[in-house]
Amino acid sequence: MGSQSTSEGLGQEFTNHVIQAMGPNTSPRMRTVMTALIQHVHDFAREVNLTADEWLAGVEMINWAGRMSNDRRNEGQLVCDVIGLESLVDDITYREASKADKPPTSSAILGPFWRADAPIRENGGTITFNTPKDGQVTFMHGQVTDAVTGKPLANATVDVWQASTNGLYEQQDPDQVDCNLRGKFITDAEGRYSFYCLRPTPYPIPFDGPAGKLLKLMDRHEYRPAHIHLIAECKGYGSLTTQIFDKDSKYLEDDSVFAVKDGLTVEFKPREGDAQAQFDLEYNIQLAKKN
Amino acid sequence: MGSQSTSEGLGQEFTNHVIQAMGPNTSPRMRTVMTALIQHVHDFAREVNLTADEWLAGVEMINWAGRMSNDRRNEGQLVCDVIGLESLVDDITYREASKADKPPTSSAILGPFWRADAPIRENGGTITFNTPKDGQVTFMHGQVTDAVTGKPLANATVDVWQASTNGLYEQQDPDQVDCNLRGKFITDAEGRYSFYCLRPTPYPIPFDGPAGKLLKLMDRHEYRPAHIHLIAECKGYGSLTTQIFDKDSKYLEDDSVFAVKDGLTVEFKPREGDAQAQFDLEYNIQLAKKN
Repeated sequence: MGSQSTSEGLGQEFTNHVIQAMGPNTSPRMRTVMTALIQHVHDFAREVNLTADEWLAGVEMINWAGRMSNDRRNEGQLVCDVIGLESLVDDITYREASKADKPPTSSAILGPFWRADAPIRENGGTITFNTPKDGQVTFMHGQVTDAVTGKPLANATVDVWQASTNGLYEQQDPDQVDCNLRGKFITDAEGRYSFYCLRPTPYPIPFDGPAGKLLKLMDRHEYRPAHIHLIAECKGYGSLTTQIFDKDSKYLEDDSVFAVKDGLTVEFKPREGDAQAQFDLEYNIQLAKKN
Repeated sequence: MGSQSTSEGLGQEFTNHVIQAMGPNTSPRMRTVMTALIQHVHDFAREVNLTADEWLAGVEMINWAGRMSNDRRNEGQLVCDVIGLESLVDDITYREASKADKPPTSSAILGPFWRADAPIRENGGTITFNTPKDGQVTFMHGQVTDAVTGKPLANATVDVWQASTNGLYEQQDPDQVDCNLRGKFITDAEGRYSFYCLRPTPYPIPFDGPAGKLLKLMDRHEYRPAHIHLIAECKGYGSLTTQIFDKDSKYLEDDSVFAVKDGLTVEFKPREGDAQAQFDLEYNIQLAKKN
């Protein structure tokens, strides 16, 4: 026993021992994932000579993330976000799912504020029911098409959500009505959707938990560039989760959760002749057919 | 923005971008640790093509570990233990702390059941107050010495704790009195300590949380070989946290938390002429002087 230990301490022999402890009934995928995870975790600890105190500080952050998480908040997710992991797995998942010649609209991370139960609203309607004084109303519209043929997709769903100018989503803010700045729109026969929303503004991610502590320790700010979240879905097509970013926003270069990608920035143009909106945003979406 | 993205997806350029986001006021140690952590986490995700669903399953396990943890249970720690991480950082910490020529007694992981408030007891006394029917009482004794000079160390503290034969520590088991199978002993002028305890038996680690789920997914059992925990401390010397293992126990080769090391197995010998104990265990401890 203990033969994994050498005079140089617990090296690769120990790591092999831990990996080989997996039994014959481990699924092939689990074995692949855990082999790589154990190898990288051990290599990390050895490379930096991680001490027991440092490791325990990490354990305490994990436990703290779990204690803070609930139906309205996923702090474990947020901790991953600030080290770029959600953006990375989103990118991997997107590329695995879309191996067509013409790539569909780029994906981006879901984030912790999506709600499954957002209401379906009429095209041309609004999602801003508590427009703040500093809010700039925008008419957002576009067409959903097949990424390869360009054919318009009727009855596609465009599910959007955004924070208000105070940086809060409605579920974080008692001063917003239920499902403010949130809604689902169904495309018409020409694949078109449209609604009034706010021109988004930068806001900080929650800073009172381990993700905030990690940002402080890394001497980083907690801001995200101005963005609107959306999920587009159509029967027979791959679902698309993305965020679109105001090209004039601050923090595009240093998003605290690293979600900004090429092809996701959009231009808010002045809107003429519409008493309801100051800005106009056209955003077209290409979806990839399922194989 | 988003220039970290290439046609091959988020590669090393993206990882460098996340690492370089750390600000100038990051401490040098934090920068070292987070640089290696971010690099390994990203490399892991890319190597196995980790999908968003797999990553979210991992996030849920982290959050679950935090929800289960409290003053009496540290599930985040246990999850690390089953992939060998606590054993590894313990080994690193031990080797960093002891660079003398004569290495002191080997260390081992603390585990989640130590209590800071264990009572000081008399040498020659007992820690087994609810001896179970299948319990085999053992007289444990030994000498604490300086690892280099061999000089006996008086007034050293030997803090011991162990599970009962049902596999439970007293804080897990309403049928054991407070601080059963737990106590601190102070060495005499010759550095000697002694007490009656149980010959330890194998037991399973808690199996109802994410650590248990991970073991199941890896097709591994949850048992630990028979062991007694101890911490030895003496003024002017480095503190030693260790576990000693019964050399005849099952699971020495496949401890579920990988804590067994060379030099930590001990022999329980039959004890003659003592109506109170069936077994005798001599265990001597060497401590390293602080630099």
